Amino acid sequence: MESRNFLRFLLVFITAALVLLITWLHLPYGPPPDDSDLLDCTTNSPWCTTKNRFQYPKRPRTTPAQSFLKKPKKPAHRSHELDTPQHPLDPLTVQEINKVRKIIKSYHLFKSAPLAIHSLVLEEPDKTLVLRWQKGDPLLPRKAAVVARVKGHSHVLTVDISTGEITIQATGPLSGYPTMTMEDMTSAPWAPLSNLDFNRTIIERGVDLKDLACLPISLGWFGKKEENRRLIKVQCYSMKDTANFYMRPIEGLTVLVDLDTKQVVEISDKGKKIPIPKAADTDYRYSTVDVNQRMRMINPISLEQPKGPSFTVEDGHVVKWANWEFHLKPDPRAGVIISRAKFRDPDSGKMRNVMYKGFTSELFVPYMDPTDAWYFKTYMDAGEYGFGLQAMPLDPLNDCPRNAYYMDGLFVAGDGTPYVRSNMVCVFESYAGDIGWRHSESPITGMEIKEVRPKVTLVVRMAASVANYDYIVDWEFQADGLIRIKVGLSGILMVKGTSYVNMNQVTGQENLYGTLLSENVIGVIHDHYITFYLDMDIDGSDNSFVKVNIQRQQTSPDESPRRSYLRAVRHVAKTEKDAQIQLKLYDPSEFHVVNPTKKTRVGNPVGYKVVPAGTAASLLDQSDPPQKRGAFTNNQIWVTPYNRTEQWAGGLFVYQSQGEDTLAVWSDRDRPIENKDIVVWYTLGFHHVPCQEDFPIMPTVSSSFDLKPVNFFESNPILRMPPNVDKDLPVCKPAADA
Amino acid sequence: MESRNFLRFLLVFITAALVLLITWLHLPYGPPPDDSDLLDCTTNSPWCTTKNRFQYPKRPRTTPAQSFLKKPKKPAHRSHELDTPQHPLDPLTVQEINKVRKIIKSYHLFKSAPLAIHSLVLEEPDKTLVLRWQKGDPLLPRKAAVVARVKGHSHVLTVDISTGEITIQATGPLSGYPTMTMEDMTSAPWAPLSNLDFNRTIIERGVDLKDLACLPISLGWFGKKEENRRLIKVQCYSMKDTANFYMRPIEGLTVLVDLDTKQVVEISDKGKKIPIPKAADTDYRYSTVDVNQRMRMINPISLEQPKGPSFTVEDGHVVKWANWEFHLKPDPRAGVIISRAKFRDPDSGKMRNVMYKGFTSELFVPYMDPTDAWYFKTYMDAGEYGFGLQAMPLDPLNDCPRNAYYMDGLFVAGDGTPYVRSNMVCVFESYAGDIGWRHSESPITGMEIKEVRPKVTLVVRMAASVANYDYIVDWEFQADGLIRIKVGLSGILMVKGTSYVNMNQVTGQENLYGTLLSENVIGVIHDHYITFYLDMDIDGSDNSFVKVNIQRQQTSPDESPRRSYLRAVRHVAKTEKDAQIQLKLYDPSEFHVVNPTKKTRVGNPVGYKVVPAGTAASLLDQSDPPQKRGAFTNNQIWVTPYNRTEQWAGGLFVYQSQGEDTLAVWSDRDRPIENKDIVVWYTLGFHHVPCQEDFPIMPTVSSSFDLKPVNFFESNPILRMPPNVDKDLPVCKPAADA
Repeated sequence: MESRNFLRFLLVFITAALVLLITWLHLPYGPPPDDSDLLDCTTNSPWCTTKNRFQYPKRPRTTPAQSFLKKPKKPAHRSHELDTPQHPLDPLTVQEINKVRKIIKSYHLFKSAPLAIHSLVLEEPDKTLVLRWQKGDPLLPRKAAVVARVKGHSHVLTVDISTGEITIQATGPLSGYPTMTMEDMTSAPWAPLSNLDFNRTIIERGVDLKDLACLPISLGWFGKKEENRRLIKVQCYSMKDTANFYMRPIEGLTVLVDLDTKQVVEISDKGKKIPIPKAADTDYRYSTVDVNQRMRMINPISLEQPKGPSFTVEDGHVVKWANWEFHLKPDPRAGVIISRAKFRDPDSGKMRNVMYKGFTSELFVPYMDPTDAWYFKTYMDAGEYGFGLQAMPLDPLNDCPRNAYYMDGLFVAGDGTPYVRSNMVCVFESYAGDIGWRHSESPITGMEIKEVRPKVTLVVRMAASVANYDYIVDWEFQADGLIRIKVGLSGILMVKGTSYVNMNQVTGQENLYGTLLSENVIGVIHDHYITFYLDMDIDGSDNSFVKVNIQRQQTSPDESPRRSYLRAVRHVAKTEKDAQIQLKLYDPSEFHVVNPTKKTRVGNPVGYKVVPAGTAASLLDQSDPPQKRGAFTNNQIWVTPYNRTEQWAGGLFVYQSQGEDTLAVWSDRDRPIENKDIVVWYTLGFHHVPCQEDFPIMPTVSSSFDLKPVNFFESNPILRMPPNVDKDLPVCKPAADA
Repeated sequence: MESRNFLRFLLVFITAALVLLITWLHLPYGPPPDDSDLLDCTTNSPWCTTKNRFQYPKRPRTTPAQSFLKKPKKPAHRSHELDTPQHPLDPLTVQEINKVRKIIKSYHLFKSAPLAIHSLVLEEPDKTLVLRWQKGDPLLPRKAAVVARVKGHSHVLTVDISTGEITIQATGPLSGYPTMTMEDMTSAPWAPLSNLDFNRTIIERGVDLKDLACLPISLGWFGKKEENRRLIKVQCYSMKDTANFYMRPIEGLTVLVDLDTKQVVEISDKGKKIPIPKAADTDYRYSTVDVNQRMRMINPISLEQPKGPSFTVEDGHVVKWANWEFHLKPDPRAGVIISRAKFRDPDSGKMRNVMYKGFTSELFVPYMDPTDAWYFKTYMDAGEYGFGLQAMPLDPLNDCPRNAYYMDGLFVAGDGTPYVRSNMVCVFESYAGDIGWRHSESPITGMEIKEVRPKVTLVVRMAASVANYDYIVDWEFQADGLIRIKVGLSGILMVKGTSYVNMNQVTGQENLYGTLLSENVIGVIHDHYITFYLDMDIDGSDNSFVKVNIQRQQTSPDESPRRSYLRAVRHVAKTEKDAQIQLKLYDPSEFHVVNPTKKTRVGNPVGYKVVPAGTAASLLDQSDPPQKRGAFTNNQIWVTPYNRTEQWAGGLFVYQSQGEDTLAVWSDRDRPIENKDIVVWYTLGFHHVPCQEDFPIMPTVSSSFDLKPVNFFESNPILRMPPNVDKDLPVCKPAADA
């Protein structure tokens, strides 16, 4: 017995050693070194290292932390080392970030232990101060808002950059954790490789460890078991023979990892019999398309502006176009922040306030599969991953047309080092051939009138790639005062491995939790909710929210040959609960934000309306843990009184949060909102039942909503714009002939 | 007493004579001459006369009937006299129309009495024959479908053009009348001028008769009183000092006119105390804008294609672009008809059927004011006025961008004479800077991948000006197989005169029936419904309609940490009532048209889905006469079995119809629709509560819906398209420098 046991032990030992050896030999790059010190970006994290361990040919890695230090080739990067702030809302500069880092590091609380900076951004000055500030005034005192973790605690600090003073903000007993650092996200996927069982199961599934690609998946919150420690789930894919590893899941294998210690907590390994889908036809890169298969069906088409764009970007952040002016900045969490949006009144010539601040506050992306490896996929991409952190450099001529202006993001690594995300945002004028307004007289009157104005708009765009999915967020400004906020979904589906290769094997299609997209590949049903923060300031901060309900009115017996007509009944929302809106096609309303103290010449309150378009509503059970956390999607529209701490619809600390700090909780306080400084929240939704056209990469699906002037102007603000005439348009020839 | 009576008579007589004299002296042009004979277009109708009575400087009139006879200057018109049909669905040519007219005129039924041609279009060959026909085959026998009125009766005829044979179609006892002729619409507004009381009231209101502009307004149907005769209501405006007479209503004055005899039946004159709104600030023509007020804020921007467009138009009507091919023709009632839309499968290279025929079937535009001068305004613009008849020549560079292809409409006057509506439809490629698909790898994986494809589309556009309103209808074809059908609303509001000049005079705002837009001007609330006929033929004619219901599924107690998820449950519609769909945000579905006999490689039925976006539903009482007539708006989606007589959602004869021939009636027959040749009907809706920005002309408001491939392709059909590269794009300079 003894010897048998010994032999058994030897076998296990040798296998283990072998597996470990193979693991090390085949790693695309070694697991991150000692992660106990998060301070040194140059040593602790693959994504910001200077070492050449990422030269594995299939996975060349960018080095974002360096891009502001060295000159890349193309497109020309701006150096940001000498940037100085010009506007109270300008993001922190390289110098300011470096100063803040030094201040923090010497602060007593952080001296003794390793520190991780989860967020380091401008602490915006008080709204009243910003509203009063004018160009030429001295800059308002610069402060940084910092979220840092030390010794297992999250701290929210305000750092006064000039005085060096640090104020600790009380956050109360919030359940969640701050947005992950890039180091969290890039190091967690390698943690399982230190685990023997993990490596063994990978090899048993026929995947070479060098072909392994793993993703860090936020795990939501599902009760006690996962509380009081920062956790993450890691799932892996085979990247053999394709760049599109997402289509080759190692199904059912989920590794629970402690984010702070990078220890494997638990491995769930349930899909051993599920084959890894084939690589064929999954790659989407043009370089991999057979030359004979390339589809060159469309002649070049281009938006051309021979006299150049009509917009300017002043002082790096203030965009001026047509009658619009606004402040634009990248943000690590929100992506893009539009502030101080003002419109020059065509009659008075005066700038009029429209929106103090608008941005993507949170996303909620629940997948609809309750099984072990899927139930927890209920992403909140802004608060968990950083919607801006995931926004990658845009591709000129494809992501944005010619003449686009590109703006860099300046973000901060976990150790406090600033780094540049180049070309993160673009600004361009768009003309699709659409019509701003038109009228022809018809043969009925026979008058010879044909007046048409082309519609040109200004688009601010970013594209965030939250691992597989790509979110394209457009803020589109129209010359007539309308703002369209559009979200496009593209990128790659999160798919599930399956034994099925044909639907004729499936009984009860609903149990697939999705659509069979290809052999062994299921596209799992999911929703996307994108919640926008819209601090509207219509001609001043104090506004009211008015629901203009469109109701059927029956006529009285001898009133009219008509039995019914529709009337518009105005309800001014007194408190927050009056403004919790679920849209109904058969009980429609318009949603106005008005300035009750300012009227047009004929006495209508000036306003803007929120105009929903196609959208989707969350149908999850409200007691379901994901829906509690995503309770900000319980309504499509909410209105809250302005409160500078209420910016993130899912709460400040969303990661593993339990939903006690959401917009739904704030709104249920039912505070007064009439004639107050109010914030409107709008949620754009998508149900996504995947189809084969989404394989291996999805054609963009878009939806939008509008902020539209409603009695804001005395009359059509683009009445006096000129039509296009031939002599203004360019003369072009193919580049080849030039 | 006798002498007093005589004096009174004399006074009345002299006044009357004076008024009549003034009337004649001030008429912009004389009322139409004897209208008992509608046959001669050159004498009976202002809109097609050759006489110079329209040379009144403010109202130069076009002469559409002539435009194919003489050469206009710009843009270059095509001559259509020698056109010959090339495709079984090609519209009738000039020669064919002339032949049909001769055949009809010599037909016994029409020899003895004046005849009015209300419609004369191609009678499309049987679908089975068209589907079998291929280019190169002999053309199918050419027939004309004619709607003609003689001696107070409407006749529907089929004329065999080669044999001269006429077949009278039985229409049953339908209540309504055919679409008005242009002669009806242009002559009716002058009928009131023959009435003494009318002229007197106009002058009493301070309007010079030469400044009078009157509109022919379809009167709907509201019971016995207005049955059994063709009637119309005429309302008038002052065009003094503005081209935008619509903003200067002579409120409350409604003249009921017999459309056949042009006799005044009744005058309702109720708004005498309501002032006519001022002309100031109502004109919208650029020529009237003060040079210092012109807003040149945007540099020229243009869609440029240095190698020219990528589409071709073969044989005058077959459009080929990217993988799409379809037949396109103008139609006097529908506007634009798309037929035989096919897509070349990127894998097999074979053309696959998508849609046999699609067009705007009917519009319904109820105004929401139950008072005397407004209650009847419940327009059905296609069936009453002819949506195509009202589509005016497009304005190059403004209605459509450079490189657009323009197609003429060939229509038929009341006497059977063909005439050309030049540049009625345009076709162009659009690129707004949008993204077809994209993916970047994020810092999470760090792979250096950024693949983006620009999104270029092909747009087919027309713009119908139904008196005041302009409807822009776009059929937008995407390279990925999606068809977006978009309707834009612009033009001029139908407004109501009021004594109010400021809202502070108004108590109970709802009684305005709209919004005070300017002094004395109310924009009345109204809806727009545009119902599309979509004969989908997914890989063949026999298809099924599948409602894919997205439902919440509760998990069972120990199934999952999740309490709920969503699943997609497929319901195949067996009969028409299964497919009467009202959209609900909280009970969402996808709406698939599938070919149940054709599956993808992995076994999904091939299909397209109807994807609603922003829309509105009619809330009128279903027993309200307008809603009975517009009952096709009772649902957003309907599906009927293909029936060649069921094309017009409001019925064949919509004018004064009572609603017994609508889509709602057909659908309630509840015929089987599973695995049959089916037609999908989709209604796009708008509630329009006017706002001051709509004054004096409305910025375009758009909404759309999509027909989107769903498992129609094995995978993303635009996977292999190339990205933009700089060397393909043009080199441009301002025209002035050229």
